[in-house]
Amino acid sequence: MCYNFLMKVSELGEFGLIDLLARMISASQGSQTRPHQKLIVGIGDDAAAWQSDTSTQLATVDSMIQDVHFSLSTTSWKELGWKSLAINLSDIAAMGGVPEYALVSLALPEDTEVEDAAALYEGMIELAQQFQVDIVGGDTCKSPVVSITVSVLGSRPDRNILRRFTARPGDDIAVTGYLGSASAGMEMLSGKSHFSPEASTYLRNAFHHPLPRVVEGQLLVKKGLTTAIDISDGLLSDLRHICQASKVSARVEVDRLPIHATVRDNFSEKAVALALGGGEDYELLFTGTEKAISSVKAEAPCPITVIGEITADQPGEISLFDQKGNPVSVRETGWEHFRHG
Amino acid sequence: MCYNFLMKVSELGEFGLIDLLARMISASQGSQTRPHQKLIVGIGDDAAAWQSDTSTQLATVDSMIQDVHFSLSTTSWKELGWKSLAINLSDIAAMGGVPEYALVSLALPEDTEVEDAAALYEGMIELAQQFQVDIVGGDTCKSPVVSITVSVLGSRPDRNILRRFTARPGDDIAVTGYLGSASAGMEMLSGKSHFSPEASTYLRNAFHHPLPRVVEGQLLVKKGLTTAIDISDGLLSDLRHICQASKVSARVEVDRLPIHATVRDNFSEKAVALALGGGEDYELLFTGTEKAISSVKAEAPCPITVIGEITADQPGEISLFDQKGNPVSVRETGWEHFRHG
Repeated sequence: MCYNFLMKVSELGEFGLIDLLARMISASQGSQTRPHQKLIVGIGDDAAAWQSDTSTQLATVDSMIQDVHFSLSTTSWKELGWKSLAINLSDIAAMGGVPEYALVSLALPEDTEVEDAAALYEGMIELAQQFQVDIVGGDTCKSPVVSITVSVLGSRPDRNILRRFTARPGDDIAVTGYLGSASAGMEMLSGKSHFSPEASTYLRNAFHHPLPRVVEGQLLVKKGLTTAIDISDGLLSDLRHICQASKVSARVEVDRLPIHATVRDNFSEKAVALALGGGEDYELLFTGTEKAISSVKAEAPCPITVIGEITADQPGEISLFDQKGNPVSVRETGWEHFRHG
Repeated sequence: MCYNFLMKVSELGEFGLIDLLARMISASQGSQTRPHQKLIVGIGDDAAAWQSDTSTQLATVDSMIQDVHFSLSTTSWKELGWKSLAINLSDIAAMGGVPEYALVSLALPEDTEVEDAAALYEGMIELAQQFQVDIVGGDTCKSPVVSITVSVLGSRPDRNILRRFTARPGDDIAVTGYLGSASAGMEMLSGKSHFSPEASTYLRNAFHHPLPRVVEGQLLVKKGLTTAIDISDGLLSDLRHICQASKVSARVEVDRLPIHATVRDNFSEKAVALALGGGEDYELLFTGTEKAISSVKAEAPCPITVIGEITADQPGEISLFDQKGNPVSVRETGWEHFRHG
């Protein structure tokens, strides 16, 4: 790929920028040899991975920035703390790893109330305790907007981490939990429609309080699976990441998408578009043999749904079908509206 | 300590906020036992540390935020990349560790030029290569202001890390390199005075291009020293951190402060105040026996200067003396102006 440096990052796009920076780093590392050179995964998967003497080490980082990733008018400080750690635990989960340590860099406007900063940490600590993660380091500084960057370190006792490039034609495609609930929650929070108290609670939690699939990620490895990603950008976008890395294509049956009754009831025909394109569900998307996935299903603590199949067509291509096997037009599902990257 | 939650973070101050958050975390961890519970240092030193099977792991995080830590009108993108990694390597150096891996979270306004983002990475990569650090992970997102958060992971092959609480009365106090150069550089960049091209280059580099004392940190451990901190907040502020943690006091001879000729010549009587109170030098401040420090001096690749002595007076108290042993008044040195925390 040839880059035009004389453009704005908004024109290059997030994935283009990451790709450019990853190439710069990789070019700089080509000629180096060093004692600790045991890197397995650099930039370009859910988390970085390297070999230590007795295990595989994992590391990931993600930021949440005010008015880009959240608005204080619709998010509580405690929810913000929970989510800023959750999105990182999800990356470790998507590698099949055990999260262990978290480092937090917290940038706050000077007029932030101390009780709000404390509530943010309460949310983070609550989730950390649930998964036995130690918050080991911190940096605080002032900033014009609230910005929280969390790094999480984890490990696996072996080399069997979940990657993106190992999907093979014939594999089933499956997901944990429900799709589209988080983006439905975001729509609810930004809109004026009326929802029942139960629906409102479900949707708010889906967006603000994702439960990272840490247990499920480790289960996938235990059952011999090798391919997974967490759904942060949206099903189609993240499935495309797997297909591009694996040089395969995919067919998805839209009628099989696991959509929660609350989303189906409240968003009618838009529900499928949310499930296909809405991001931030932090569910795991994975592929494998029918047998292995059945075995996961039997032990998983959450719903596991097969939604399609890996195929050998144009690499990166994703085709949508209804239950009768008829192609579903992209326009009808409306997913282009949500397409990232 | 009792906290009043009904105040702004600006009233509580950075150190107060970190202390509060550290206490919340420590309270939450008290009752937990977990398989990987091998934490040696949590929040409250230069870096976190925990025991792995064969080594001590180290981790640190620091953010640089536009118009808080730097201004794009006086900093080049490449310098920004260098410094955002350097301040983290300095934290690993202050623990006596070897930096190994870096994770970068980069938040940029959408209209940032791609060549500027690339230049930032160039600066970071240049420093990473110098110390054989792998940049392994990255996150990029949009933001109203430029914000760079770098996490660095490192290790030591043994348990001998440098801490803050091990200074003892009778120890000499020493520093690497020169003091006050970075803050003199900042004064130059923000002011209108005239400087010679040579002075200008020296001062600019001191502020924008600090060389983390990674080699020196490891040398301190090799020579049996146990107490160190990096000077990020300023000599007096960071020496106070050591004294408070070690429950000791210190006397500093202001005439022994290593002040570079460029700073002495261009800032006359202000030079001592810059050396005492100016931050961001990223030199190491350490204590130990006269013999051990002489041994460090003999092998160190940079100047090592003894500037005073650890004493057994009021814990946390720092007294300043001239070469005749007369107390120097705080007002004369002007250091209160720079006092942090």
